[in-house]
Amino acid sequence: MSEDGIDLIFPDLRLPDEAVRLQAQARLDSLTKPVGSLGRLEEVAAHYLAMTGSASAPSLDPVVFTLAADHGVTTEGVSAYPQSVTGQMVKNFVHGGAAVNVLARHAEASLCLVDMGVAEDLGKVAGLLDRKIAFGTNNFLREPAMTREQALQSIQVGMDLAKAACADGKNLIAVGEMGIGNTTASAAIVSVLTGQSVEAVTGRGTGVDDQALKRKIAVVQQALALHHPSSSDAIEVLTKVGGFEIGGMAGLMLGAAIRQVPVVLDGFITGASALLAVALEPRCREYLIASHLSQEPGHRIVLDHLGLDPLLDLRMRLGEGTGACLAVTLIHAALKVYREMATFEEARVSGSLPQP
Amino acid sequence: MSEDGIDLIFPDLRLPDEAVRLQAQARLDSLTKPVGSLGRLEEVAAHYLAMTGSASAPSLDPVVFTLAADHGVTTEGVSAYPQSVTGQMVKNFVHGGAAVNVLARHAEASLCLVDMGVAEDLGKVAGLLDRKIAFGTNNFLREPAMTREQALQSIQVGMDLAKAACADGKNLIAVGEMGIGNTTASAAIVSVLTGQSVEAVTGRGTGVDDQALKRKIAVVQQALALHHPSSSDAIEVLTKVGGFEIGGMAGLMLGAAIRQVPVVLDGFITGASALLAVALEPRCREYLIASHLSQEPGHRIVLDHLGLDPLLDLRMRLGEGTGACLAVTLIHAALKVYREMATFEEARVSGSLPQP
Repeated sequence: MSEDGIDLIFPDLRLPDEAVRLQAQARLDSLTKPVGSLGRLEEVAAHYLAMTGSASAPSLDPVVFTLAADHGVTTEGVSAYPQSVTGQMVKNFVHGGAAVNVLARHAEASLCLVDMGVAEDLGKVAGLLDRKIAFGTNNFLREPAMTREQALQSIQVGMDLAKAACADGKNLIAVGEMGIGNTTASAAIVSVLTGQSVEAVTGRGTGVDDQALKRKIAVVQQALALHHPSSSDAIEVLTKVGGFEIGGMAGLMLGAAIRQVPVVLDGFITGASALLAVALEPRCREYLIASHLSQEPGHRIVLDHLGLDPLLDLRMRLGEGTGACLAVTLIHAALKVYREMATFEEARVSGSLPQP
Repeated sequence: MSEDGIDLIFPDLRLPDEAVRLQAQARLDSLTKPVGSLGRLEEVAAHYLAMTGSASAPSLDPVVFTLAADHGVTTEGVSAYPQSVTGQMVKNFVHGGAAVNVLARHAEASLCLVDMGVAEDLGKVAGLLDRKIAFGTNNFLREPAMTREQALQSIQVGMDLAKAACADGKNLIAVGEMGIGNTTASAAIVSVLTGQSVEAVTGRGTGVDDQALKRKIAVVQQALALHHPSSSDAIEVLTKVGGFEIGGMAGLMLGAAIRQVPVVLDGFITGASALLAVALEPRCREYLIASHLSQEPGHRIVLDHLGLDPLLDLRMRLGEGTGACLAVTLIHAALKVYREMATFEEARVSGSLPQP
C-alpha cells in the first residue's frame, strides 16, 4: 500500500541469507568446543550474520531507541502513575538516571531518546530528538487515538530514524519506550492482531491493583466495540487504538529490516509494535530478536504469534528498552565467540565430532 | 570434621545479612522504576549485597577459575573425546582461544587457570597454576578414584585459591572446569548425594551417542555398586568416584563462602562440586548463584536439590565456566542499576507506588 507520500510496500526487503547461516554454523562447528555446545549463543550469532548477509562478524555498534509519548486514555484511570510521569521520565533519561541509561551503557550501546508525542512542551533539550506528532493521543474510549495521517507519520518517523542510524553505521537496533498508558493501547492492538481476548492480553502494566485492572480491561473492550478496527488494516488499528511511540517503533523495525539490520525487541509494548510491523510486511519478522519474556501476561501471546523465542526470562516488566539492552550484551558475546575463538586446527585440539 | 591438618569445620561461616537485604531492597524500591519491575536483576543485587554484608555496592572485580584434571574412567569409553583433549584444551586456554577466554573477557573477569591433575606434564607455563595432585585419577570402575588424602588435598587447594583471590580483592568468584570424563564422575557424585537414579543424572556430556551413553550409565552403576560410597560422607564420595577439579571447586566454594564472597556456578560438574561443598557445610549454599541451566539432564536435579534457580537457559552444555561468565555480566548489570540509577526524589519523578 502507498498513501500520503509514504510507501508501505517493501520490495527490497530480503530474507536472511540461508547460505550465510550455514557458512556461519560451519565456522561455529570448527571452534574448540563440542558442536552446538554454546546453544542459543551459536544460534544468535548465525542468525545475526544471516540477517546482515555476511559471514564476517562485525564489531557490534548498537543503538537503543527509547521513544516516548502520552496516551489520552490515561484519563480513564488505567495506570498506576499520573500522565505527568512520562515527561518526568524523559527528563530522567536525558540526565542519565533511568534504568535504560544504566543498561545501555552496560551494553556498550548508544541511546537515542525521541519525543514522539509527550503531552508536555519539553522545549529544546540536548540529547532528546523532537519528533512530537501531537501532545499525546486522544482518549480512544471516546474517539480514535489519532488520525490516519498521524499514524502514517509516526511510522515514517521511525523509518527515518532507522535510516539515519544505519547510515551512521549502527548494525543493531534495540527498541524501547516510555508512555504512561501504553500497555492499555498495546493490549487493544494485541487483542485485534492476535485474535486473543482482551482479558488474556491485558496486564497490570506499571502495577495497577485488581480494581484498576478490571477497569483497564473494560476500557479496552469498550474501545474495541466502539472502533472495531479491522485486523487486516494495521494502519487502522494504530489509528484507532495505538500510540505515537508504538507506530514509531513499528517504523524503526521496518526501516531496519529493509537495510538488513537486526532489531532487538523489548517487552509487551514493543511486541505490539512488532505485530503492526509484521502485519504491514510479514518478512520484517525475520529481522526481529526477542530479548526477554516480560511479566506482562500478553507478552507470551505476542511472541508465540510472532514465532519468536525470548533469550531471557528475568521476570522483568519495566520497558524503556531495558530487556533489550541485556539481550544486546548476549549478542555481543555471541559475535565475540564467533570472531575470537580458536578453531580445532588453530589450537591443535583433537578433532571435532559430529553432533549426536 | 578435622582430618589430616585440614579443618572442615567452618564456625566463621556467616549467613547472608537479612538486614542488608532489606536495606538494599529499600534502595531498589526508591529508584525511578515501578517497584520490583527489574525482577531478578533486583533480586540478584540484593542477594549479592546480603552475602557481602554491606548495602554499599562495590565495583565488581570478578575472577573465573577454570580447573582442569583428567579421569581414569575415560579408558572405559565414556566420552566422545580422547583424554588428550584435556591437556590440549588447557594449552588453548593459556593461548586465549577457548570459549571461556572470550566470555571471561566479555564479563570483564580475570581468568585463573589451574592444573589440578591433568594426565600430562604441562611443564612450567605462564598463566597456568600448577596444583597437580596426580596425573589424573584412577579408573573408578576398578579402584577408588583417589586416596582420601588426595581428596582432602584437592579441597584444600581450592580453599587456598579462594583465600588468595579474596586477599587480592576479588569480590565474585566464578567456577568452571575442563576434564574429559568429568560428567561421568559428576553423575556418580550427583546420584549418591541427591538419591536420584544413575539414569536420571547421566547425560551425553560432550556428545556421546546412544550406545556410549548406555555404557556410561552402566559404568557409573557398576562403580557405585563396587564402592557404595556413603552419602553422609562427602569426602568418601569424592575419594571413590570424584575428580581433582571437582574437589578443587568445592574448596573454592567453601573458601569464598567463609569470606562472604559470592560464588557463581557453571553447569553440571560445578553442580556436583556444589553438592559436595554443601554436604560438608550446608550454609555454603547461601553463597552460590546458579548461572544457567545446562542441557545436561542431571543439572536440573542438582539445582532443585540445592534450591537454586538459574538466571539463564541458553541450551548450553560446554562447561569451562562459560555459563558462569554470562551470569557475571548480569551481576555487573544488577550492581550498576543499584549504584547508578536515580531515585524518584533525585529525578523529581512523581512517587513510587506500593507493589501490587
